[in-house]
Amino acid sequence: MILKYRNSLVLIVFFLSLCTESTLAQKATWIWYPGDFEIWLGNKMQNRRTERGSFLPPFWKMDSHYVLIDFHKDFELSEAEVAELYVEGQYNVKIDGKSLFGYPDKISIPAGKHRISLKVFCQNNVPAIFVRGKKVISDSSWLVTFEDKEWIDQSGKASDQSGTSWLNAAAWNFDSPSSPPSAFKLAVKPQAAVKTERSGQSLMVDFGKETFGFLKLQGLNGKGTLGIYYGESREEAVDTARCETLDKLHIGFDKKKDTIHTLTRAFRYVNIQMDPGMSLDSVSMLYEYLPVEDKGNFRCSDEEINRIYEVSKYTFHLNTREFFIDGIKRDRWIWSGDAYQSYLMNYYLLFDSASVTRTLLALRGKDPVTSHVNTIMDYTFYWFMGIHDYYEYTGDKTFIRQFYPRMKSLMDYCLARRNKDGMMEGMAGDWVFIDWADGLSKQGELSFEQLLLARSLETMATSAAIAEDKVNAAHYNLLASELKKNIFGKYWNTDKQALVHSYVNGQQTNNVTRYANMFGIFFNYFNDTQKLAVKKQVLLNPSVQKITTPYMRFYELEALCAMGEQPYVLKEIKDYWGGMLKLGATSFWEEFDPGKKGTEHLAMYGRPFGKSLCHAWGASPIYLLGKYFLGVKPTSPGYGTYLAEPELAGLDWMEGTVPTPHGSVKLYCSKTEIRISGTEGTGTLRIKSKTKPLCKGAKIKALENHVFEIQIIRGGTHTIQYNL
Amino acid sequence: MILKYRNSLVLIVFFLSLCTESTLAQKATWIWYPGDFEIWLGNKMQNRRTERGSFLPPFWKMDSHYVLIDFHKDFELSEAEVAELYVEGQYNVKIDGKSLFGYPDKISIPAGKHRISLKVFCQNNVPAIFVRGKKVISDSSWLVTFEDKEWIDQSGKASDQSGTSWLNAAAWNFDSPSSPPSAFKLAVKPQAAVKTERSGQSLMVDFGKETFGFLKLQGLNGKGTLGIYYGESREEAVDTARCETLDKLHIGFDKKKDTIHTLTRAFRYVNIQMDPGMSLDSVSMLYEYLPVEDKGNFRCSDEEINRIYEVSKYTFHLNTREFFIDGIKRDRWIWSGDAYQSYLMNYYLLFDSASVTRTLLALRGKDPVTSHVNTIMDYTFYWFMGIHDYYEYTGDKTFIRQFYPRMKSLMDYCLARRNKDGMMEGMAGDWVFIDWADGLSKQGELSFEQLLLARSLETMATSAAIAEDKVNAAHYNLLASELKKNIFGKYWNTDKQALVHSYVNGQQTNNVTRYANMFGIFFNYFNDTQKLAVKKQVLLNPSVQKITTPYMRFYELEALCAMGEQPYVLKEIKDYWGGMLKLGATSFWEEFDPGKKGTEHLAMYGRPFGKSLCHAWGASPIYLLGKYFLGVKPTSPGYGTYLAEPELAGLDWMEGTVPTPHGSVKLYCSKTEIRISGTEGTGTLRIKSKTKPLCKGAKIKALENHVFEIQIIRGGTHTIQYNL
Repeated sequence: MILKYRNSLVLIVFFLSLCTESTLAQKATWIWYPGDFEIWLGNKMQNRRTERGSFLPPFWKMDSHYVLIDFHKDFELSEAEVAELYVEGQYNVKIDGKSLFGYPDKISIPAGKHRISLKVFCQNNVPAIFVRGKKVISDSSWLVTFEDKEWIDQSGKASDQSGTSWLNAAAWNFDSPSSPPSAFKLAVKPQAAVKTERSGQSLMVDFGKETFGFLKLQGLNGKGTLGIYYGESREEAVDTARCETLDKLHIGFDKKKDTIHTLTRAFRYVNIQMDPGMSLDSVSMLYEYLPVEDKGNFRCSDEEINRIYEVSKYTFHLNTREFFIDGIKRDRWIWSGDAYQSYLMNYYLLFDSASVTRTLLALRGKDPVTSHVNTIMDYTFYWFMGIHDYYEYTGDKTFIRQFYPRMKSLMDYCLARRNKDGMMEGMAGDWVFIDWADGLSKQGELSFEQLLLARSLETMATSAAIAEDKVNAAHYNLLASELKKNIFGKYWNTDKQALVHSYVNGQQTNNVTRYANMFGIFFNYFNDTQKLAVKKQVLLNPSVQKITTPYMRFYELEALCAMGEQPYVLKEIKDYWGGMLKLGATSFWEEFDPGKKGTEHLAMYGRPFGKSLCHAWGASPIYLLGKYFLGVKPTSPGYGTYLAEPELAGLDWMEGTVPTPHGSVKLYCSKTEIRISGTEGTGTLRIKSKTKPLCKGAKIKALENHVFEIQIIRGGTHTIQYNL
Repeated sequence: MILKYRNSLVLIVFFLSLCTESTLAQKATWIWYPGDFEIWLGNKMQNRRTERGSFLPPFWKMDSHYVLIDFHKDFELSEAEVAELYVEGQYNVKIDGKSLFGYPDKISIPAGKHRISLKVFCQNNVPAIFVRGKKVISDSSWLVTFEDKEWIDQSGKASDQSGTSWLNAAAWNFDSPSSPPSAFKLAVKPQAAVKTERSGQSLMVDFGKETFGFLKLQGLNGKGTLGIYYGESREEAVDTARCETLDKLHIGFDKKKDTIHTLTRAFRYVNIQMDPGMSLDSVSMLYEYLPVEDKGNFRCSDEEINRIYEVSKYTFHLNTREFFIDGIKRDRWIWSGDAYQSYLMNYYLLFDSASVTRTLLALRGKDPVTSHVNTIMDYTFYWFMGIHDYYEYTGDKTFIRQFYPRMKSLMDYCLARRNKDGMMEGMAGDWVFIDWADGLSKQGELSFEQLLLARSLETMATSAAIAEDKVNAAHYNLLASELKKNIFGKYWNTDKQALVHSYVNGQQTNNVTRYANMFGIFFNYFNDTQKLAVKKQVLLNPSVQKITTPYMRFYELEALCAMGEQPYVLKEIKDYWGGMLKLGATSFWEEFDPGKKGTEHLAMYGRPFGKSLCHAWGASPIYLLGKYFLGVKPTSPGYGTYLAEPELAGLDWMEGTVPTPHGSVKLYCSKTEIRISGTEGTGTLRIKSKTKPLCKGAKIKALENHVFEIQIIRGGTHTIQYNL
C-alpha cells in the first residue's frame, strides 16, 4: 500500500513539474503590486453610485495604489532570448542592475543567470508589466516592492538587508498584452425587453425579471430631454418623483440614432418619458456580468426549493461583479458584512477565489487604519472571519503570508479601541450595526461584538502561525481564550440559559437577542448543554425578537442547521424565500417581513422604494443547501480532508456538486442510496442508518446512535445502500 | 499709554476685519486637502529624472493624494446669490445636506444660514474645487476631510462627534477657474545661446552660464537621429559617452520645423550630433522658473563678496522650482537635508513660505511611515528642524496644528527605532548620511544623529503645545532634556574638550569630527566654556578632518559666525566660493575641494561628470550674509520681536534687506553710521561702539563691553552714529 502511494506521489510530482514548466514557458500575464489593482478598481466601481441623479460616493476613506513599483526576477537561461515588454506607466528596465536606454519594448537577455528588473511609475492606473519571452515571462513568481531602498548600499549595507520587503507579484487573468488591468471591463451580452407599453410620449419597458446593465435606446430621434426612471418594481418605475435611480438625456438628433447609456443600472422596469416631438423605436439592454462558471449545483425532489435555489443563484450572480457587492440597485458598494456571506455562498457555487481575495483586498485598503471597515465595527470582524473561511476552504497560505501585515495593523486598531475591561464598545466614529432591526440597542458592551472579536483573534492566531510570527501567534491565542472566558462570565445568564445582549454601566442587561446566541452555536463556543438550552430558549422561542433580514436569517438558519434542525430550516426556507417568490420576486430582497402588505415591501430607510430587491445576502440558500443539506465541508484547510454529512430533512432525494479548490465533490442522496465521488482530498461520508450500510470495497466505521462513517477515496465513485 | 495702545489695537482689528471682508468677498481660489497637491506634484516632478536616457525614479515610497474628499463651509447670507462651481473630479453638491441633481456648474443659495458641501472623487489629480459667488467663495476657510462618516448618525451619534477630523482646506495661487491645480506649470521665457560652433553635422552651443529649461531646435530638417548631449561643463557636453544627460530625437521631416523638447534639462553647453543629411538652423531655449520675487538683498564694499552673493542668488533660483530641489542637472529630487538649507536661505531672500511648506509636505508624504525621509536618518531630523525654523521665521501656527499628526507619527517612527540605550543607530534600511566625506564612520551611535534627534524633540515639544497636546508636549520636553544629558555623558571628552564622533560597542571612540561640535554651538547646547574650547579644538583646528562640501561648510561657517568669527568667515567665503568663481563657476557646486585640479572638479560618485555644478546647498552665503553680517533674525516667532546685530567683519560698509512675514528690515551699516528700519515687529539693534551711539529720539541701553541696544520702532527709520 505504501509503495503504491509513493509511486502515485512520484507520478503526481512529475506531472506537476511538467505543468509548471509548460505553464511557466507559455503563460505570461500582467502583474502588479498585490492589492493595488483591487483598490484602484474598488475606487472606480464604488464611485459609480448615483441616487436620484446625484453622485453618491462612499463615506469612508478610499485609498490608492502605490504609484512607483519595482519588479524583479532572477532567471537562469540555457540560451539567449528576446522578451517583449508591455508596461502601464513610465518605466526603466535593468538587466543585472544596468539600465537600458529609454523605454525599450524588447529586451535581449544573454544565456546564463540574470536579474531582470523593471521600475514603473504610474499615477492614474496601477503600475503593471507584461513580459513575454521564451522563459522570461511575467507571472506571480516575480517579486515586487514599493520601496526598493536600492542605494542603501552606499551606507555599507547589503541591499538584501535593506529592510525592503518583497512580495510576490499579483496577477489575475490579464493574459494578453492588449488587455492591461487598466482596461478591465466586465462582459456584456444583449438582452431584449419582454414587453413594452407605449402611451403618448411614454414607454414602460419590462425586462421580465430583475436585471443589470447598460440601457440601449434604439432609433432615438428629436430634440429635448428624455427622462429614464428605473424600477425594480413597476411601482418604482412609475413613481418618477421618488424612484431611486433616474437619468436624463438631453439630445438634439436630426436622424435616428442608437445610444447606449454609459452607466450601468439595476432594474426590471424602465419608464421613459420624452419631450414632445421626440421619438424612440425600442429599448433593449446590454446585460453586464462577470464571466464565471457555476461549479456547484443543487437539485432535489421539492420544486419550490429548486426554484428558490435558481433564484438564489441568479441573485448571487447579479451581485458578483468586479467585487461581491451588497445589491445592484442602490449602493453597489463593497460592504464587508454583506461580502462575508457572499464568500460563503461562493464556496458552494463558484469557488472563485479571485473574487474573494479581490473583495477582501478592496475592503482592507491600506494603512494607516483610520476607521473600521466601512466604518462598522462588526464589519471589521467579518473581514477577519472572511480570511478564516478563505483559508479553511482554499488552504491558500500565500495570501495570508502576503497580507498578514495588513491583518495585524487592522487588529492593532481594534485592540487599541477596547475599553478598560478589554471589551469593544462603540467609540466616536464607530458604527455598530449588527442588523436592521427596530429598537436594537447599541449601547454599552454588546455580546455579539465580543464574540466576533474572539473569532477574529482566533483567525489572527492561525494567520500569525502561517506568517511565522510565533510570538504574536501565542499572543493572539491567549487574547482569544481570555476573551472567550470573559464573554461567558459577563453575558451568560443561568436563569435565561442564554447570552444576554449587552452589558451597560457595569450591569448585565435583561435583554436576550438572537445574535450572539446563534453565532455562539456555529462558532462552537457553547458546550452541548448550552447549545440545547440556547436552541430552546432563543432560537426556537417566538418571544425573542424576530429577525426580518435575510442577512441575519442566514446565521439563524445556519445555527439551527448546526443543531441538526434541517427539517425545520427547510420549512423556514420554503416559507421565507418561498414567500418572496409568491410575491413575484425574481431575485431575493434586502429585507422581507412576511407580515407586511403590498407596496410596504418596497419601502426601506424611510423611502418608498429604498429597499433593494436584489441583495446578495438574499441568496443564502446556496450556502445552507450545500453545507448543511448536501452537508459537504472541509475539515482541514483546502479540502485536504472533508466531511459529507447529507441531511434529506424530509426530501425524497437531492443531488448536487460542491466545488473544491481543484475539483469537486458530487453527491446524490435518497432515503436508501447515496452516491458520492470526490476528485481531491480525503473525504468522510457520515450518515445515519438503521442498519449497517452497504458499500462495495469501502471501510465502514460504526459510531454510536446508528451513525456510520465511510471513507471516500479520491477519484472513485462510491455507492452506498442504507436505511434512513 | 495703555489707552493709546488700546486705540491702536481697535484700529488694527477694524482694519484687519475690513481686509478679511474684502478678501473673502473677492478672492475665490482653488482649494484641496492640505498636503495632497504637494504629494501629487512631488510625484510628477521627481519622476522626471533620467540618467543617460534611462528613467531614474526615486527609491523611496511615493504616496498619493486622497481620491475622495468632502469640502464644506457654513455661510450666512443677507441676500440670495448664485455661485459658479468648477471642480476637478466627479462630484456632488449639497445645500444643507440635500443633494442637487447631476453635476451643476451653478448653484443658487437662498438668504440665511446655509451649509454648502461638495464631495469630489478624482483618481488622476487632486480633488479640488473653485466656488465663486458673491460671498460664497472657496478659500482656505473651508473645511475638508477624507472620511466624512456622514452616516454615523444612523448609529445614534451626532455627526460632529463622529471622530472625523476636519482640516482647513489648502490653497496656493490658483485664483482663476481656468487654471486648476492639475494644470500647474512653472513659467518660461525664451533665452538665446551666446555662441554656437558648427563642425560638419555637429553643433556646440554655449548659453554663457548654467541654465535650465526646454531646448528649442529651430529649423530642423531631414531624416534620422539627432543626439543631444548636455554639459554643465564643455568637457561634459563633448564627452558623448559619459555625459550625465542626453536625449535622442528620431525625425523624418520633409521641411524645416521648430521643436521644443518635452523634458527640461540643466546645462550650459549643448552638443548636437546629427545624422548625415539632417540640418538645423539654430538652437535656443525656454528658461523655466518659479516666478517669485527677491525680497531680500545684500551689497557691500567688497566686489568679490557681491559677485558671490549674486551667483548664490542665481544658484538658489535655479534650484527653487516646484519645490526646493538638490540640484538641477542630476537628481532634481527633494532631499530633506538639502531642502533644509534652502528653507534658511529662503528666509533671507524670498521669504516664500509656500515654497517651504510645499517642500515639507512633499517630503513628509503620508502615513504609514515605512522609512526615514529619503531613507536617510539625518534627513528625517532635518525635516523636524525645518518646521522648527519655519515657525520661528513665520509664526504660522495653522500649519503646525494641521500637520501635527504627521509630525507625531514620524517621531513615533524614530522613537521606536532607538536602541536599548535610547540612542539612534542605523538599522536595516536606514541610510546614515551626515556628509560626503572620505572614510567617515557610520558605525554605532553617532553623536551627530543624537544631537539632531534632540533638536527634533524640542521641535515636537513646541509643536505639541501649539496643537494643544499638553501631555505629549511635556513628554517630548522630558525626552529632549534627558537625551541632551545623555549626549554630554556619552560623547563629551574632557581631554579633547569636544564631542567625539561616536560610541561603539559600549565605548567612546577616539575620533573627533566637526559635525556634532558645530551643531552643538548654534543649537546652543554647549556652555560658554565648552563653546570656546570647541572653537579652538575643533572648528579652528586644521588637524580635524576638513569639510569639502558646501553642504557642511554651511554649518561650519554658521557655527563660527555664532562664535563671532565673522572676519574669519568672510575670508573663508572669499576663498571657498571665490575659489569656485575663479575656476569659472556660473553657479555654485555640489562639492568643492580647492586641492583638486582641472577636470577632477567635475567628477563625483565615481563618474567623470557625476558632480552637479549647480547645487542649492552651494548658495549658503545668502543665509550667512543675511543672518550673521546684516545680523537680522527673529527672537520670537514670526518676527514679533527681532534682533539686528550687524557685523562688518572688516568691510567698509554693507547694506541690505531682510524680509519678514509681511514686510522687511532694511539696514545700512558703515563703520560710523547705521540706518535701520523695520516694517513690522519690535526690533533691537545691538552694536558695539567705543562711545555711546547717537540716535535721535531712541532709547539706548548700555550693556557691558561697549555693547549698546537700541529699540527699533515699527515703521520708522533710525539713523545711528557710532564708533566701531
